[in-house]
Amino acid sequence: MLEIGPPNSKGGLDGPAPAKTIKFTSESYPNIKRDSKFTKLTEEHVKFFKELLGSESAVIDGVTQDATEDIEPFNSDWMRKFRGHTQLVLKPSNKEELSKVLRYCNENMLAVVPQGGNSGLVGGSVPVFDEIVINLQKMNKIRSFDEISGVLVADAGVILENADNYLAERNHIFPLDLGAKGSCQIGGNVATNAGGLRLLRYGSLHGNVLGIEAVLPDGTIVDDLGTLRKNNTGYDLKQLFIGAEGTIGIITGVSIQCAARSQAVNVAYFGLESYEKVQEAYRTAKGQLAEILSAFELMDGRTQKLVNRVTGKKMPLEGEYPFYCLVETSGSNTDHDAEKLQAFLEHVMESEIVLDGTLADNQTQIKELWSWREGITEVLGHEGGVYKYDLSIPISELYDLVNDTRDRLTEAGLVGDGPDYPVVDVVGYGHMGDANLHLNIPTRGFSKEVEKQLEPFVYEWVQKRNGSISAEHGLGVTKKPYVSYSKNETMMKLMKQIKDLYDPKGIMNPYKYI
Amino acid sequence: MLEIGPPNSKGGLDGPAPAKTIKFTSESYPNIKRDSKFTKLTEEHVKFFKELLGSESAVIDGVTQDATEDIEPFNSDWMRKFRGHTQLVLKPSNKEELSKVLRYCNENMLAVVPQGGNSGLVGGSVPVFDEIVINLQKMNKIRSFDEISGVLVADAGVILENADNYLAERNHIFPLDLGAKGSCQIGGNVATNAGGLRLLRYGSLHGNVLGIEAVLPDGTIVDDLGTLRKNNTGYDLKQLFIGAEGTIGIITGVSIQCAARSQAVNVAYFGLESYEKVQEAYRTAKGQLAEILSAFELMDGRTQKLVNRVTGKKMPLEGEYPFYCLVETSGSNTDHDAEKLQAFLEHVMESEIVLDGTLADNQTQIKELWSWREGITEVLGHEGGVYKYDLSIPISELYDLVNDTRDRLTEAGLVGDGPDYPVVDVVGYGHMGDANLHLNIPTRGFSKEVEKQLEPFVYEWVQKRNGSISAEHGLGVTKKPYVSYSKNETMMKLMKQIKDLYDPKGIMNPYKYI
Repeated sequence: MLEIGPPNSKGGLDGPAPAKTIKFTSESYPNIKRDSKFTKLTEEHVKFFKELLGSESAVIDGVTQDATEDIEPFNSDWMRKFRGHTQLVLKPSNKEELSKVLRYCNENMLAVVPQGGNSGLVGGSVPVFDEIVINLQKMNKIRSFDEISGVLVADAGVILENADNYLAERNHIFPLDLGAKGSCQIGGNVATNAGGLRLLRYGSLHGNVLGIEAVLPDGTIVDDLGTLRKNNTGYDLKQLFIGAEGTIGIITGVSIQCAARSQAVNVAYFGLESYEKVQEAYRTAKGQLAEILSAFELMDGRTQKLVNRVTGKKMPLEGEYPFYCLVETSGSNTDHDAEKLQAFLEHVMESEIVLDGTLADNQTQIKELWSWREGITEVLGHEGGVYKYDLSIPISELYDLVNDTRDRLTEAGLVGDGPDYPVVDVVGYGHMGDANLHLNIPTRGFSKEVEKQLEPFVYEWVQKRNGSISAEHGLGVTKKPYVSYSKNETMMKLMKQIKDLYDPKGIMNPYKYI
Repeated sequence: MLEIGPPNSKGGLDGPAPAKTIKFTSESYPNIKRDSKFTKLTEEHVKFFKELLGSESAVIDGVTQDATEDIEPFNSDWMRKFRGHTQLVLKPSNKEELSKVLRYCNENMLAVVPQGGNSGLVGGSVPVFDEIVINLQKMNKIRSFDEISGVLVADAGVILENADNYLAERNHIFPLDLGAKGSCQIGGNVATNAGGLRLLRYGSLHGNVLGIEAVLPDGTIVDDLGTLRKNNTGYDLKQLFIGAEGTIGIITGVSIQCAARSQAVNVAYFGLESYEKVQEAYRTAKGQLAEILSAFELMDGRTQKLVNRVTGKKMPLEGEYPFYCLVETSGSNTDHDAEKLQAFLEHVMESEIVLDGTLADNQTQIKELWSWREGITEVLGHEGGVYKYDLSIPISELYDLVNDTRDRLTEAGLVGDGPDYPVVDVVGYGHMGDANLHLNIPTRGFSKEVEKQLEPFVYEWVQKRNGSISAEHGLGVTKKPYVSYSKNETMMKLMKQIKDLYDPKGIMNPYKYI
């Protein structure tokens, strides 16, 4: 779970250093072996795909060395942690082309990896060995939007931010927001069941996605792209594709319920003396802000000091506190929201639930306060690598894991200032409203010793509390070996059944997920 | 789709007349034949179940004539439309008992029907022939509730109203409400993906249900009863059980996300001159009431006159209008909500979007106004039977179907006053916010001629508009033959795959759904 090098919060394929310097996944994970059942790519295969997809820009070919575009950015990820050996990238323009691609791959036992914006955190969207990359970037059209129902229908390859901007012009909002919005694609968001910043308010994709269009490994086009809020005519099969990480088919289109955009948005940023007070603040916000509460984010003091140190920006509050939280409200009436927020502020200040706070009510100030939450990912890799865990834990115990992990690493003599200590710090932040903790351990480099202290410790800790070892980042390559900490044997068996049903030859995104 | 006799809006098993007078489903649907692959029940089978379930109250046995309780109410439904021939009702007390029951049935090819509150509208919860009824009423405990996260965990057999009352005492709300709340069970609600009155605000069960515990036909206990808002560790298999109508397993427990209960609830009731104005009112409500809008219900003038005539109650408004709508707001601040609603009222009155309106702001008045919407079902059967359709249609065309159907039946000379005309009226109402129309045709009795005019006309009309032939009522016996109007061939094939995967012997709720 080590990330080497500074992460780029924008994600995407334009990393700072050449992709060729990234270590191969097959070397970082020597236990993963190429499955010999898969055919090796030949010039004949490449010829078929070139004839099928026509346009030169649709095929990046490392086999015949006839590439019109560098293939390496498609082989590696933005964190510079994963790198595959693919020699072929295909960019179908529509579902019919994709159908022919997949049918051919399935018949010829060619393994494939679906790739959206390639902004994931678990190595799900790049090959491990020579799997063919199927990139969705050419399928990038908004198909329709209904202003009365608020239903958007779009190609899978539409970039999230483009979809949200399109909706903003129509006074609506995409029910999902996350740091990588500038590069991630909505098909990838759905395939990975992305959570992010708006889940507290708008709920999960399982509720918001109304329809899906997908292509199965055998080339079957699944047209389940309905736009109805209610449709009780059979098994809701589209749900299987939400969070399947491209292991049973490739999503080509999505229809999704979008809410009206709020006219009033306010953000408050608080300093608190303990995690108990953060919980109290959350309970109070749920009660008093109720229907206008749209985010409740937790940041510990260490993350905020780190942002301060790396960016050199002045901290939002005068004093320093062990905990901070960011509360966002979104509503339809500016005065009402301001009044609710004011009452909430007075209450939490007077009752000493929070010790200090500041309020943003214009776009610039709001962005500035959010940067203290959204900027954490970027500054964490500043000194080397980061061990990242994305966990669901019952709220009352959520931050205990950060303390317990810090204690454990400290007792092992691994935490400290200066080059003798591999661990820089142990920090926690996350989506409090979703009971979703991001436990991060910034390090000065890779250390077998640190890893041994962390795993399986973290997973066992979470399992004991019936939490999830992957709240929103998914499984990919990194979490595949640990699924059983969050799924029992029966669930594992039932998952395998679904995989075998939809992808009997196992060509879809192998070495990952299941 | 004919309902004989007056429906009882409370649902449940205590219908007014003896169940023995209801026509057998096998006679109403002569095309459905008993599948000879199923074993006929013997005394030996009954002996096994009696030994397994112990308590006398857990087995109602019509085979050895040793019944302690009348078996007929379990054979028939509250609408008095469906009646089966079962000779055995089993009431397991826990998932382990249910597991043994199902394993035995599966091994011995005994068909079963899961039964919750038996308040469905499509014949899904009663047998057609001699299927064994597995009734969930003994599994009726609330297991836990977390006031911080708002997550309720409960047995499948908990009655919806009991769950909601339990939550009300804890300032929370069940994210589902429907007319049959006094008898329907939350397991049945989830198994049928019930929609109802709160969907507009709280979203569908696919978003709110966080975990499911279920038993598969072979006795496997599926423990996927997590309480986490976020858990991306594999296929979200619980989704398959939501809306599967007991055809792949029986739900025994549910964990569900519940919202904080709103302190302020207001209801407004409007008269409007056209369906265009209703749409305008809806658009305005979405914009101005936004986050506090919790229901937007449509009732045509004919339904309201009918409620007036049958109940003798004075109509809420002085004049009479071709359309009415009921708008409910739920929020956390009484003053803010009243102010928003007042502004909305002034706007829609001044711009003549609505012609008249009345406002309720105390519990009694709110109940009274809701009775003009909720009372429709009950009064419709007053003159005989009712043809009921539950459809999703794009909002802009939603009411056209009522007019088109009325025109069609009128042209065929079937609509009029007096005993010569089989059709009393053609009316429409429903959940406008969900684009969900209830098209109802009250009749003076069964008429082959009326039926021929209605079907497949209604289904074809909806299919042309990419609507759903069953928005929230499900498939059961009545809609099974028409699924293909809302699902294409590929989807039908994929659904069949899932059925065969989970229930290879086909013992679960046969003759229905798929």
